[in-house]
Amino acid sequence: MKEQRNGLLLVVSGPAGVGKGTLDKALMERNNRIKMSVSATTRAPRPGEVEGVHYFFKTEEEFKAMVDQGEFLEYMHVFGSNYYGTPRSFVEQHLANGYDVILEIDVQGAMKVKQAFPDAVLIFITAPSMSEIKSRLIGRGTESMEQVEKRFATAFEEVKMIPRYDYVIVNDVVDKAVHHMEAILEAERCRVSRSSDLIESFMEIGR
Amino acid sequence: MKEQRNGLLLVVSGPAGVGKGTLDKALMERNNRIKMSVSATTRAPRPGEVEGVHYFFKTEEEFKAMVDQGEFLEYMHVFGSNYYGTPRSFVEQHLANGYDVILEIDVQGAMKVKQAFPDAVLIFITAPSMSEIKSRLIGRGTESMEQVEKRFATAFEEVKMIPRYDYVIVNDVVDKAVHHMEAILEAERCRVSRSSDLIESFMEIGR
Repeated sequence: MKEQRNGLLLVVSGPAGVGKGTLDKALMERNNRIKMSVSATTRAPRPGEVEGVHYFFKTEEEFKAMVDQGEFLEYMHVFGSNYYGTPRSFVEQHLANGYDVILEIDVQGAMKVKQAFPDAVLIFITAPSMSEIKSRLIGRGTESMEQVEKRFATAFEEVKMIPRYDYVIVNDVVDKAVHHMEAILEAERCRVSRSSDLIESFMEIGR
Repeated sequence: MKEQRNGLLLVVSGPAGVGKGTLDKALMERNNRIKMSVSATTRAPRPGEVEGVHYFFKTEEEFKAMVDQGEFLEYMHVFGSNYYGTPRSFVEQHLANGYDVILEIDVQGAMKVKQAFPDAVLIFITAPSMSEIKSRLIGRGTESMEQVEKRFATAFEEVKMIPRYDYVIVNDVVDKAVHHMEAILEAERCRVSRSSDLIESFMEIGR
């Protein structure tokens, strides 16, 4: 039996404004064996953004070479301009070192990751209701009503994908939602489907 | 959406001596929304055993009538003498009232319950290794070496069934194992497959 077990890949999605970032941050503050996945992008760094912390910044040529070499768990091309992708090696190294890795990503990306990495645990974060999602979008006050309507329509397309996820967490009270995420991590480590080493060791000794 | 959600049925199995009873008891002491399932039996009450607490005591005639009326989630006939069974109504009433119900049962019974009740969560409790299982059987000091060997052979047949369970918990430190059980309960409540009410409510409001 391996001494150290691999970490879990946690894929986190959910509509804008439901507090995914807050939950991820709180989860990491309470657990030092969790890392956030860092995306690669071809867009230029914004002031304050640090290479390898916020993004891995790549030229389009570099990015395309990585695509050709299968170095992404998933990638997408936004608005005919910038590329964004999830470097496979970054995730796999942390998992092999026993860290759990959080990958915050949209529903399309999540589906691609699940295909490339069937062991991933997919969590959908949502507000208690669609009307609450709308209030939160309006409450942010950073967007026009037109933009809010557009984001709300997107949110509705996203919640339709919940059945493709493993877990759904209603982010009503942050502490409770973070506790749910911790429980999911702990429970998933006990899943029989992840315990083939353990089961094998029983079979050998029992003979 | 329903105000109160149904409880979860937790089916707990594992070799003799691994501490299932200790874990169940600790879990119930820490959570007042958990009930133990009470079996029905045709055997005579032993001193101190209370009807409805330790068992529901039935005549063979009563028991067989319950079988005919489909009142058992599972039942078995032991050594050509006594019947044991899990009354369905007791379990279902508690679940409907929002209690989680623990059903401690052998591997054959667990498979029957899963068939009758596909929503059940199956947890296998084990010691860290087969040799540890043997030490614990010997350590109990209540059985002859012949009986220990027989129980050990049974234990090996039982661990072979782990792949049919949802979760496996190694009971090394009781507090840790109980925490795993609590995490499993909390995580299972977040499972998308148990959240059809929530998902439906999103679909309606989003229209």
